[in-house]
Amino acid sequence: MTRPRPLVPRGDPADSVRVVGEFGVIARVLAQAGSARAAEVGPGDDAAVLRTSDGRVAASTDVLVEGRHFRRDWSSAEDIGHKAAAANLADIAAMGGTATALLVGLACPANTQTTWLEGVAAGLAAECAPLGAAVVGGDLVAAAPDSAAVVLSVTALGDLGGRAPVLRSGARPGDVVALAGRLGWAACGLAVLRRGFTSPIAAVAAHRRPTPPYAAGPAAAEAGATAMCDVSDGLLADVGHLAADSRVVVDLDRAALERACLEPPGPLQQVGAALGVDPLAWVLTGGEDHALVATFSPRAVLPEGWTVIGEVRKGGRKPGVLVNGEPAADVVRAVGAEGAGHVHFG
Amino acid sequence: MTRPRPLVPRGDPADSVRVVGEFGVIARVLAQAGSARAAEVGPGDDAAVLRTSDGRVAASTDVLVEGRHFRRDWSSAEDIGHKAAAANLADIAAMGGTATALLVGLACPANTQTTWLEGVAAGLAAECAPLGAAVVGGDLVAAAPDSAAVVLSVTALGDLGGRAPVLRSGARPGDVVALAGRLGWAACGLAVLRRGFTSPIAAVAAHRRPTPPYAAGPAAAEAGATAMCDVSDGLLADVGHLAADSRVVVDLDRAALERACLEPPGPLQQVGAALGVDPLAWVLTGGEDHALVATFSPRAVLPEGWTVIGEVRKGGRKPGVLVNGEPAADVVRAVGAEGAGHVHFG
Repeated sequence: MTRPRPLVPRGDPADSVRVVGEFGVIARVLAQAGSARAAEVGPGDDAAVLRTSDGRVAASTDVLVEGRHFRRDWSSAEDIGHKAAAANLADIAAMGGTATALLVGLACPANTQTTWLEGVAAGLAAECAPLGAAVVGGDLVAAAPDSAAVVLSVTALGDLGGRAPVLRSGARPGDVVALAGRLGWAACGLAVLRRGFTSPIAAVAAHRRPTPPYAAGPAAAEAGATAMCDVSDGLLADVGHLAADSRVVVDLDRAALERACLEPPGPLQQVGAALGVDPLAWVLTGGEDHALVATFSPRAVLPEGWTVIGEVRKGGRKPGVLVNGEPAADVVRAVGAEGAGHVHFG
Repeated sequence: MTRPRPLVPRGDPADSVRVVGEFGVIARVLAQAGSARAAEVGPGDDAAVLRTSDGRVAASTDVLVEGRHFRRDWSSAEDIGHKAAAANLADIAAMGGTATALLVGLACPANTQTTWLEGVAAGLAAECAPLGAAVVGGDLVAAAPDSAAVVLSVTALGDLGGRAPVLRSGARPGDVVALAGRLGWAACGLAVLRRGFTSPIAAVAAHRRPTPPYAAGPAAAEAGATAMCDVSDGLLADVGHLAADSRVVVDLDRAALERACLEPPGPLQQVGAALGVDPLAWVLTGGEDHALVATFSPRAVLPEGWTVIGEVRKGGRKPGVLVNGEPAADVVRAVGAEGAGHVHFG
């Protein structure tokens, strides 16, 4: 593990939002934006207009606050753009859709560097581009008078491609529970950064730029997934919501989860050993990797990238999550995790 | 004019977001949300799903920051909800569309009162309801660690009803310029509040809850409007963008503007006389009433609610805005306004 160097660029007053001005900044930022394949009207008018393939649009909003969800000394501007886009694009994937566009509301202090904002825009664009999506609108405003923090609110629009949206409420007893994507990596990277280190780089990179398995969402919908959600607050927390909404019990298979998430051994074990943390704690409670969890009929053929990690049982009066038949809370306590998922207002 | 009393409720710790918790607050807030006619999937899943009538969706985002766009001692929670919704719903109307849904990203300190957030939600819902729209999703997060301010980012989705979107870039020499809605009232109300007064109530109410002429947007599109925008930053500023995007000169008719906006005499004259301000300054440069400005062929029949306030001329090398043939900047100087529209990063 190596000590970090500060990533915040020295402020050149001539490059500040105050001096360049709202419209100058917007022009520079839009030069980074790319273009959305589905856009009939792009940025610059009162509203953007997006085409949808089936007369419906999926839409989701996530807010990232400096000092809560990112730090400018831990993540580059590009990283923050990638992360803000990924959180929203993954929500669209979790409905079985493909994102088509982002709208971005950004509040920042007047001394924010224009080059930094261009970096955020470049990160947003780079995360969107493989999907054919882009930023099509937004609003740039001054931060609150008492605050030097950046607040980034991103709304993603998406296309369901004629398929029914895959809700959290459709899991049925007998279904298998499957996972696509990584768990615990972003939490492991955050633990590294919190202790003042910047390696192993693979873990830190996972915190800075999540890599959600976007294509796995529509593929799961196509394969008949009965319920789906993304893992933004931690596996136990998010599967808990799915179980509650479906009124079922989800029983996770610890061995399957370890095979899926902890083999072959890598950064999670390495950092876990250095910090005295059971890496399973990150797998069970770490958020922000934006893996997808879905349930399928036991007769379904799982698409590529999906691995079975548990099964759905009758909920009766107590829907919830078990691990090998035991209450999740007991397992969390046993592995020493700090709690099942994020607490947003501490 | 009467002195205001503080509108911020005393903080009951038991009602704070910290104590009630994210999911408790969201449940209470959603109880205020109403339902969107076009929603196939409403709040509570990874994303909402909205039906569109013609395979397209219009989308726009506006961010409101406490201390910049509103003050909690000047506006009630309901007022702030109304205002945040109106700013976005008007953008959809300015494309010729009808809003169908809002997504709301909200960052607030942990001691924010849940009842205050319920008030914001009630205001958002009440502003949306006449259109059949509602809040269908969002995100509630903690404010930046250095800030006690609320940041509200609202995205509106809208339906164009099969009509082409009305852009800012379509005005043609010979077109007439027309106005729907009020100008200068919100700026007049803000001037009143800034000086510590709370009356005349009609002006203060206009600052707190704008009343955009939503139906005038689709009606203008139906009547063949060639260009349209909403007035959020001030008439001269916003018509300036329309003129630039259309590469034309817009010549406003001062007498027509005064007839449309200052007759019969009312609060603008009353406050103007008390404060020594020419009310035309508010009409020309005041933002946030969200009036609509559109251009029409001189042969078009203007729909109800639209009044001619000027004409479009060839732009040549200098597109821009004139008033009675004179540069807008000279007129602004003559009436003593502080500048043509908001400066967002002062």
